[in-house]
Amino acid sequence: MTVSYEDVVSAAERIGGHVLRTPVLESAPGRFLKLEQLQHSGSFKVRGAFNRILSAGELPEAGVIAASGGNHGLAVAYAARALGVRAEIFVPEVTSPVKLAGLRALGAQVTQTGTIYSEAAEAAAKRAAETGALKVHAYDQPEVVAGQGTTGLELMAQTGGVDTIVVAVGGGGFAAGVAVGSGILGGPSGTAGRPKLVAVEPERIPTLHEALKAGEPVPVEVGGIAADALGATQLGDLAYGILSRAGAQSVLVTDDAIVAARRTLWEEHHLVAEYAGATAYAALLAGVYVPEPGERVAVLVCGANTDPATLAHGRG
Amino acid sequence: MTVSYEDVVSAAERIGGHVLRTPVLESAPGRFLKLEQLQHSGSFKVRGAFNRILSAGELPEAGVIAASGGNHGLAVAYAARALGVRAEIFVPEVTSPVKLAGLRALGAQVTQTGTIYSEAAEAAAKRAAETGALKVHAYDQPEVVAGQGTTGLELMAQTGGVDTIVVAVGGGGFAAGVAVGSGILGGPSGTAGRPKLVAVEPERIPTLHEALKAGEPVPVEVGGIAADALGATQLGDLAYGILSRAGAQSVLVTDDAIVAARRTLWEEHHLVAEYAGATAYAALLAGVYVPEPGERVAVLVCGANTDPATLAHGRG
Repeated sequence: MTVSYEDVVSAAERIGGHVLRTPVLESAPGRFLKLEQLQHSGSFKVRGAFNRILSAGELPEAGVIAASGGNHGLAVAYAARALGVRAEIFVPEVTSPVKLAGLRALGAQVTQTGTIYSEAAEAAAKRAAETGALKVHAYDQPEVVAGQGTTGLELMAQTGGVDTIVVAVGGGGFAAGVAVGSGILGGPSGTAGRPKLVAVEPERIPTLHEALKAGEPVPVEVGGIAADALGATQLGDLAYGILSRAGAQSVLVTDDAIVAARRTLWEEHHLVAEYAGATAYAALLAGVYVPEPGERVAVLVCGANTDPATLAHGRG
Repeated sequence: MTVSYEDVVSAAERIGGHVLRTPVLESAPGRFLKLEQLQHSGSFKVRGAFNRILSAGELPEAGVIAASGGNHGLAVAYAARALGVRAEIFVPEVTSPVKLAGLRALGAQVTQTGTIYSEAAEAAAKRAAETGALKVHAYDQPEVVAGQGTTGLELMAQTGGVDTIVVAVGGGGFAAGVAVGSGILGGPSGTAGRPKLVAVEPERIPTLHEALKAGEPVPVEVGGIAADALGATQLGDLAYGILSRAGAQSVLVTDDAIVAARRTLWEEHHLVAEYAGATAYAALLAGVYVPEPGERVAVLVCGANTDPATLAHGRG
């Protein structure tokens, strides 16, 4: 089971009227920030949510159900509301108050359970078996990965191509989708001009890093400041297959580097990102990934569901 | 004395390596937000500052001097630092702490004097006569207006043209520049397809509104929440000439509408703007300007020098 470039193109057609084509800021020559945190619901997740729901044909009366560290839940709730469908969302206890308030404002039925994502996911799976609701997975479903991949498709069109794409990894659905959508594994451009993918994780949630070492997804401990959005216990199988074939370069960043990157996004670029949303940028700023001279590098800023008060002077 | 389309094109070439081509978000079909608050120094003002300084030839040893409600000062300080020039900035006492801290961080020499902009401007003029520093006016200089106008040039290229441009007015330099740069008064497009300009002011600072009534710029009282950035006592002469010839439609919005627009920019679009930066958007959201069906409307979001803590839940 995998996701093809054509799947991403189809997803883009399917969801085009429902999601934003997020803008790209060239912050310095050859440095592109794709502002996916401006997406509806505050993250890229809404792309996969719409694609999954719109691919399902007729929906069960129970509507849709999802488990989520927060952003995926917000996205499913947003998409369900837009499409007039019921949504039930299971979230772990670590979920931020901003995200909980957002979920309820979107009319979703919210259940908070379990200390980490996987426990909320188990509870959601059990509930789905009872109600027959359509499960929208946070990352490990082909329609979800194809939906997230539309970000990569846009990025290549908007920039005219880049050498390198820097992207954060939690469960891996976004990075995998972007790998496919940007043509790394195929697509129209042939083998020439395909970008390299740099996959960035917090040191305290190394799902891809450990999977590449082990040769398959393995459970990792989850911690640190980006856990509410990147806190998957294990990389998705789909993401593992795609990211290993794409030759993704796995790098790790400290929580301090993530905090600093988030602050720089605000102080220099007047952009608000959550910690997870600033994780990819942290790899560049901290020198964990160092581009060659002239290398065209795109960084995906991917989430803004955060309390802006934490960016006030002297805090965060 | 006026500013031509060719002046704006020349300005764009002159400042191109120093300012950002700010992105455009199509937030709904036919609704474009030009994200000029992401510009270096947090507002459009840096365009005019660079154009004025780079047009001057050899600079006096005393460097540059400006008076400013804050954003213009930040912009002049930013441009001076980038070009290795001394900057002295006079600001009125109403200037926000965020802007003062920003000025000092950019290495400018700051003098805080007078309760409103015009008093700080008088003090700066006196000082400039003593030192021989190059004066960079906040709005009423041709090079400044031409620099701000590059925003309009970009907007038309990025959107492929719009029917209407909605822009905030303080001293009028930005609106006037955009009128010229978007081709309303000339430019390559001929008379066909020229956009309409909607000029938005807070009710409590109606410089353009009163000027159009009087047939010339007249002093107005300055007050309300956007005074730190839109608080010019009187419209600039250059702006009056350009905006009256451009047939700008003058509309007024309440402070409450500005607060609501700023909050909507954050809650729906994850964008942070200052009150002045949200003033144009307020005219659309409050229904003060109502587009026709199918009308393509661009709103200029123009400043982000604000404390994000004021966007936390339950505040602002």
